[in-house]
Amino acid sequence: RSTGSTGTMASGSAEQRALQYEQTLMYGRYTQDLGTFAKDEAARLRLQQEQGDGDAPRRRRLSELLEHSQERCAPCCGRSKRCQRFFIAKVGEDWVFLILLGLVMALVSWAMDFAIASCLQAQKWMYGGLDTNVVLQYLAWVIYPTVLITFSAGITQILAPQAVGSGIPEMKTILRGVVLKEYLTFKTFVAKVFGLTCALGSGMPLGKEGPFVHIASMCAALLSRSLSFFGGIYENEARNTEMLAAACAVGVGCCFAAPIGGVLFSIEVTSTFFAVRNYWRGFFAATFSAFIFRVLAVWIKDEETITALFKTRFRLDFPFDLQELPAFAFIGIACGFGGALFVYLNRKIVKFMRRQKTINNFLMKKRLLFPALVTVLITSLTFPAGLGQFMAGQLTQKETLVLLFDNRTWSKLEPGDEFEYMGILEAWHNPRSNVFVTLVVFILMKFWMSALATTIPVPCGAFMPVFVIGAAFGRLVGETMAVWFPDGIHNDSNTYRILPGAYAVVGAAALSGAVTHTVSTAVIVFELTGQISHILPVMIAVILANAVAQSLQPSLYDSIIRIKKLPYLPELGWGHNEKYNVLVEDIMVRDVPYVSLNCKYRALKRILQSTKMKTLALVESAESMILLGSIERAQVGALLGQHLHPQRRLQALQHKAQAMADDERRFSEASVCIQVSTEGSSFAPASSGSRKPLKPALKRVPSIPTDGHQAGASDGSGIALKSLFCANTSAEPPEAQGPAPRKAKHVRISITEDLDLGDRMTPAEILEWEEQQLEQPVDFSGAQIDPAPFQLVERTSLHKTHTIFSLLGLDHAYVTSLGRLVGMVSLKELRKAIEGSLTAKGVKVLPPLASFRRSSTSAGEMDTTDLRQLWDRHQHHLLPREACLEDGDAS
Amino acid sequence: RSTGSTGTMASGSAEQRALQYEQTLMYGRYTQDLGTFAKDEAARLRLQQEQGDGDAPRRRRLSELLEHSQERCAPCCGRSKRCQRFFIAKVGEDWVFLILLGLVMALVSWAMDFAIASCLQAQKWMYGGLDTNVVLQYLAWVIYPTVLITFSAGITQILAPQAVGSGIPEMKTILRGVVLKEYLTFKTFVAKVFGLTCALGSGMPLGKEGPFVHIASMCAALLSRSLSFFGGIYENEARNTEMLAAACAVGVGCCFAAPIGGVLFSIEVTSTFFAVRNYWRGFFAATFSAFIFRVLAVWIKDEETITALFKTRFRLDFPFDLQELPAFAFIGIACGFGGALFVYLNRKIVKFMRRQKTINNFLMKKRLLFPALVTVLITSLTFPAGLGQFMAGQLTQKETLVLLFDNRTWSKLEPGDEFEYMGILEAWHNPRSNVFVTLVVFILMKFWMSALATTIPVPCGAFMPVFVIGAAFGRLVGETMAVWFPDGIHNDSNTYRILPGAYAVVGAAALSGAVTHTVSTAVIVFELTGQISHILPVMIAVILANAVAQSLQPSLYDSIIRIKKLPYLPELGWGHNEKYNVLVEDIMVRDVPYVSLNCKYRALKRILQSTKMKTLALVESAESMILLGSIERAQVGALLGQHLHPQRRLQALQHKAQAMADDERRFSEASVCIQVSTEGSSFAPASSGSRKPLKPALKRVPSIPTDGHQAGASDGSGIALKSLFCANTSAEPPEAQGPAPRKAKHVRISITEDLDLGDRMTPAEILEWEEQQLEQPVDFSGAQIDPAPFQLVERTSLHKTHTIFSLLGLDHAYVTSLGRLVGMVSLKELRKAIEGSLTAKGVKVLPPLASFRRSSTSAGEMDTTDLRQLWDRHQHHLLPREACLEDGDAS
Repeated sequence: RSTGSTGTMASGSAEQRALQYEQTLMYGRYTQDLGTFAKDEAARLRLQQEQGDGDAPRRRRLSELLEHSQERCAPCCGRSKRCQRFFIAKVGEDWVFLILLGLVMALVSWAMDFAIASCLQAQKWMYGGLDTNVVLQYLAWVIYPTVLITFSAGITQILAPQAVGSGIPEMKTILRGVVLKEYLTFKTFVAKVFGLTCALGSGMPLGKEGPFVHIASMCAALLSRSLSFFGGIYENEARNTEMLAAACAVGVGCCFAAPIGGVLFSIEVTSTFFAVRNYWRGFFAATFSAFIFRVLAVWIKDEETITALFKTRFRLDFPFDLQELPAFAFIGIACGFGGALFVYLNRKIVKFMRRQKTINNFLMKKRLLFPALVTVLITSLTFPAGLGQFMAGQLTQKETLVLLFDNRTWSKLEPGDEFEYMGILEAWHNPRSNVFVTLVVFILMKFWMSALATTIPVPCGAFMPVFVIGAAFGRLVGETMAVWFPDGIHNDSNTYRILPGAYAVVGAAALSGAVTHTVSTAVIVFELTGQISHILPVMIAVILANAVAQSLQPSLYDSIIRIKKLPYLPELGWGHNEKYNVLVEDIMVRDVPYVSLNCKYRALKRILQSTKMKTLALVESAESMILLGSIERAQVGALLGQHLHPQRRLQALQHKAQAMADDERRFSEASVCIQVSTEGSSFAPASSGSRKPLKPALKRVPSIPTDGHQAGASDGSGIALKSLFCANTSAEPPEAQGPAPRKAKHVRISITEDLDLGDRMTPAEILEWEEQQLEQPVDFSGAQIDPAPFQLVERTSLHKTHTIFSLLGLDHAYVTSLGRLVGMVSLKELRKAIEGSLTAKGVKVLPPLASFRRSSTSAGEMDTTDLRQLWDRHQHHLLPREACLEDGDAS
Repeated sequence: RSTGSTGTMASGSAEQRALQYEQTLMYGRYTQDLGTFAKDEAARLRLQQEQGDGDAPRRRRLSELLEHSQERCAPCCGRSKRCQRFFIAKVGEDWVFLILLGLVMALVSWAMDFAIASCLQAQKWMYGGLDTNVVLQYLAWVIYPTVLITFSAGITQILAPQAVGSGIPEMKTILRGVVLKEYLTFKTFVAKVFGLTCALGSGMPLGKEGPFVHIASMCAALLSRSLSFFGGIYENEARNTEMLAAACAVGVGCCFAAPIGGVLFSIEVTSTFFAVRNYWRGFFAATFSAFIFRVLAVWIKDEETITALFKTRFRLDFPFDLQELPAFAFIGIACGFGGALFVYLNRKIVKFMRRQKTINNFLMKKRLLFPALVTVLITSLTFPAGLGQFMAGQLTQKETLVLLFDNRTWSKLEPGDEFEYMGILEAWHNPRSNVFVTLVVFILMKFWMSALATTIPVPCGAFMPVFVIGAAFGRLVGETMAVWFPDGIHNDSNTYRILPGAYAVVGAAALSGAVTHTVSTAVIVFELTGQISHILPVMIAVILANAVAQSLQPSLYDSIIRIKKLPYLPELGWGHNEKYNVLVEDIMVRDVPYVSLNCKYRALKRILQSTKMKTLALVESAESMILLGSIERAQVGALLGQHLHPQRRLQALQHKAQAMADDERRFSEASVCIQVSTEGSSFAPASSGSRKPLKPALKRVPSIPTDGHQAGASDGSGIALKSLFCANTSAEPPEAQGPAPRKAKHVRISITEDLDLGDRMTPAEILEWEEQQLEQPVDFSGAQIDPAPFQLVERTSLHKTHTIFSLLGLDHAYVTSLGRLVGMVSLKELRKAIEGSLTAKGVKVLPPLASFRRSSTSAGEMDTTDLRQLWDRHQHHLLPREACLEDGDAS
């Protein structure tokens, strides 16, 4: 009962590793044979004409359905079976699955946290134990993380290279409907969990949020696969996608114990259109997961009850003064620039590493060297006895965050108070510098370190490091404010001092929001700190940071998507007003490769040679151009290959020999025989063509090479074989994705056998036979055809097209007009149009926002339009597209 | 440049008032004439054949575009114009619009709050001033609200009946793509604002949340309309829909000063699929609005700084014990049942009022009597000196809520403490009863009062009353717990007492979540109380409440949608596993009314008589059944009417007379002339049919009635006119939605004039002429055709169909197979299939969840299937659909 909704496959190769993905089309596609369909349809129509009111097909459907249910019900008849069914029905419930997922993820998260804490503890212990010798101390400080990072890089390299990095970009792509290979397997799960634990245990500025989204998704996929023993519902693809969306929420939720923020963050970073019916799933699973995650801490007596992870204790009665809002807004805007800079820096580092061929080649050979070198560099700089003392180097990420959210004003700590906090605040209150210097050095150093560290090939996220940097920046602003206004700004009766901790919270939310282009980091900080009293400053800062960052750079995840060359559709940004005025007809490709229903095999061959499209349009005829459906390139190749198959040639040979022999006996019956054969299977020879004299059946071709490709090059059968194999390697039929290479080999072998057995024609004869065959009309029975590809009209706006493409996860859509095919739009054209290389008006569509630039462009538009109009009257042969492109290049 | 995306129109009449809405199809539709199109297409193909590589159409497109831009650019040439353009570009920015919207809504919200507070103050003042005489007190207590409610009902009745009720159901429908008439006009805005102020000022248990969503949407629509003077972007429908979504968030956000909760709540209650790109819009506008709303309170010195509306002061260090969680879960489950009961009660009251014909007729005549009676009843019961003393009757909703969230434990107030709180807690601590009795009476009485009060025809919501009841229930449970465990549950060193106020918060979130089927009420309470420390109890309770309520009843808004018979698509609920197995072919209508491109006018007439469908499929021919597009019923009617138009008849008459006269002179040229005329306009006579002798041109029909309908009954021209007018009244062409009746009259008059002028044929002759005309092939030029209606395949699952319908806001979709039309699915079939009247397997698809019931059904399914199979072999003529329906009725 597979409706075969997975589709074409492409191989997009990034430089570091080759990604293979298959495009899954959400939109209706099924794989009924055309031949079967035609027969059914004919039968149906006949019945309908006989009976008048068309209840016959319904009856037929019903009986089919009943047969189907009987088939499934037959084995389970007894009482025990009924119990089993009850159990299966229960297991099939969404909530059972979600509880299981939440439970598993909470345990994973807790266990990992425990392991990471142990690793960090060990490092501290080593560092503390060796305090007699600075050199030993330094070696312990540097070597321990280097070993861990190298191990992490090694294990991911060996087990599953897909486990590298954050995982959110991949999940975004997967939820868009693209199937990334090996991304949701058990091996990747193991590699990611262990790799992440080691990477975070090293104390490097890396995060666990992104990887947790990936881990939760893998967990959901594995759970779904293992539960599919119980019921068919787990095999449903649509359901699995919905569960993956919930899993993303669980990932964030159990990482931060932030269920609401988790759901919202996962929606923002992974979806373009979000189904509200998935909403409760996310909340349910994330809440359960966060609950278990926090309950575990209570059970092992770590904490007395469930509270926030980074609990703050700001005063509730007067959280902030209205006159502090400009400072919060400043934090937002500065964090917006900072976030954009971080994304830019991160991308530049990746690109720099790739561009340096010599370094790159060396590093590619010794894959573990780059992570080790980076680790040595970063740990050396943070060595607490060295430079580290000016940047609170000895603190772990968690300790840093707890201190940054601290309720006290560091710059105003009295010597009397100091001894109380000496132990923990020592790191910031270095005797050789002051709080401000430490904070500035911390921010600057951690900024580039985090950008660098997130590029090393281990499982790691960037959210947490960015969050810490943001908090430090906020604290810096807060401390400055506290010095500036020692008694608070408010000049009424009461004195409310400024809370630098609150500034740190605002900064953390703003910078992480700017880097990820999300607003929900605001909710995450509320849940992390357990206080929502600063909601307005946080929201204002986050929104401003987003506005600035979105107008300058893509989000970190989109940046990684582009770096990894994953298939994507850019978002319509803050200001996308032009998109309403660009129409599909301005961006569509008019020269669509098509196959017509009445075409000859030669046309198939020509189309396969002339285009590289993975999907071809099927039209009624070249004159009417009425779109009937679409057919995959592989299917066309297979049709051609089947028709020119050596076995068929052999059969034709035998058939002709027999026909020759029988010819004298019953010459008059030949035409009847032919009529039957054309209605039969596709392997039956359609010998109604020219009648040629029979060749001696014993003649052998000298030697057939075993390699199909070489055979294709040497003799005439290659035309068919080549197209067959090309199709096989470039795009698999949807059913056989796993063991693709094996299958191709198998085919090759069987062909060789056939060749050995019966090929008794000379190459010239084969060529002649094939030329004959190519003149026959195509028999489309046996081909899988998508009977309702997505259609748009010419005047659909770019905005609407983007909506439909992202809603339905389309890869391409045909542009039709009254059933006639007039063009085609694929992701590529859409991407180009959105990213600004071409538009209808000859004006470059700008990257999101930059509204100041836009106003000047729209003012200049008029002139260029007038100019172009004049110019265009001279050069009527230029296409609008090309003209636009030239225009875009010139400006 | 209107792409004409608004479409068919239907008139769904609820009992209380007639709703007229137009279906807006999001999916591609444009209104190019078929004739123009065919000509263009032919020209294009010819050019393409001449030039080989098809760059001609592109050139044509470009020149079109350039003409278009010149047209727009022509008037603005100078420098001042450039400045104007810059200004317009700025005004066209999303953020300008959102800030304006947020500002206006904050001011509206604040002003309304002020007015409501004044009204309530006035009532208190009156009540307090008259405390010497109980009768006068009672009269003041009752009459004042009654006058206000009557005024509110009156103003809405007179100005805009659309302002009645919550507005969220209507907004949900509008955001689905249905255009409800008069719902977003200035009149409705005024009626809603004043009506709501009066209704809430009366002190009745009504809420302002739902109406605020509606008010914000109207505000956005009006703002958009008034800003459309500045730039064309405001005329874009897709953008306006996005802005409406943001407006809903603003509505909730500025009502509760809860930006995050507002965004989430508005997403949950209005959307099925949510575009993440709208997310920042909602956040931006809601945050700004909430900010201004709260800043206003600071500026007028009401408050010292911005804090939460209902600030709580629960302890942060130990918010709750793990062992209290069962109590929170109990609140959740109980609130789930309570929420379902509330929705049920509300619906029953509405239905009861409608069913009582005698009461109903009386009330319909005196529309203001029902609100007045309800108000008198409710205020009498809450009279503080009477029954009201047992239910805290003298408190306003806001005071009640503040007290319910109070930090102290009421049941443990010592006599010594009491005097401090005597003033405010007096209401609950009645000397004649105790806290528990008061709470129980409060909950029970307010429950039915709120359900009743929300049915009266004034602008009102149910969120706030439900929220208060939930808080009271939570407080009741909390107080009970406090009595049960006087020293807290925790038996470690510290004593942490139970906080009944926290239970109240949990209860409020749970009950309002259950009634509205939302999870985001959790976020709203965090923002309202300014504390997030109880996140886990709140989330657990809300999720459990949702699970219970969703399995029992639709949400309040969906319930109202059904009561009002608005076009809707039910949600796929918690457990919708069956939906994956039902396919489109099981639910589609196979007998689709269609028009074929080569049909005769008689076929058009037949199809108009035989079906009531608003949209007809256009196929290539009845044999091929290839779907070319869809055509509206009105268009078909217009085609037929035009063809049989009296003026055309007259022209034919004149033409024939002339032809007759010329016949002798140039008989040989006649065939050429005919050829020309068929290519001309549709009004030109196509006289290639039978040639009849010319009638005497002076003969007059005795008397033509002026009423077109009567004329249709009496003479033969009625066939055409009737179909024309039927079409005109049942479905308007998309352009003329406003002045529809006027236009119809105009047409009628002009026809009458024509009849008077030139109809000189006898009825019999007219009939004969029309019969002739009906035999001619249809000329589709001039008809508006949707060239790409949405298509599905037979094997699309119900789940996917639901997704696509709700994603694209479809009204119907054609089921095609290789271009051939095989069926059609409309909202009706889909709704039926989802709501459980028919499925593929003969098992009723259950209403969402009720998982315990389902397991028994699936166990019984096998038996019934076997039975049905046997039974079905006997009764082969029964359709599966009917069989299922019978099955459903029997079980």
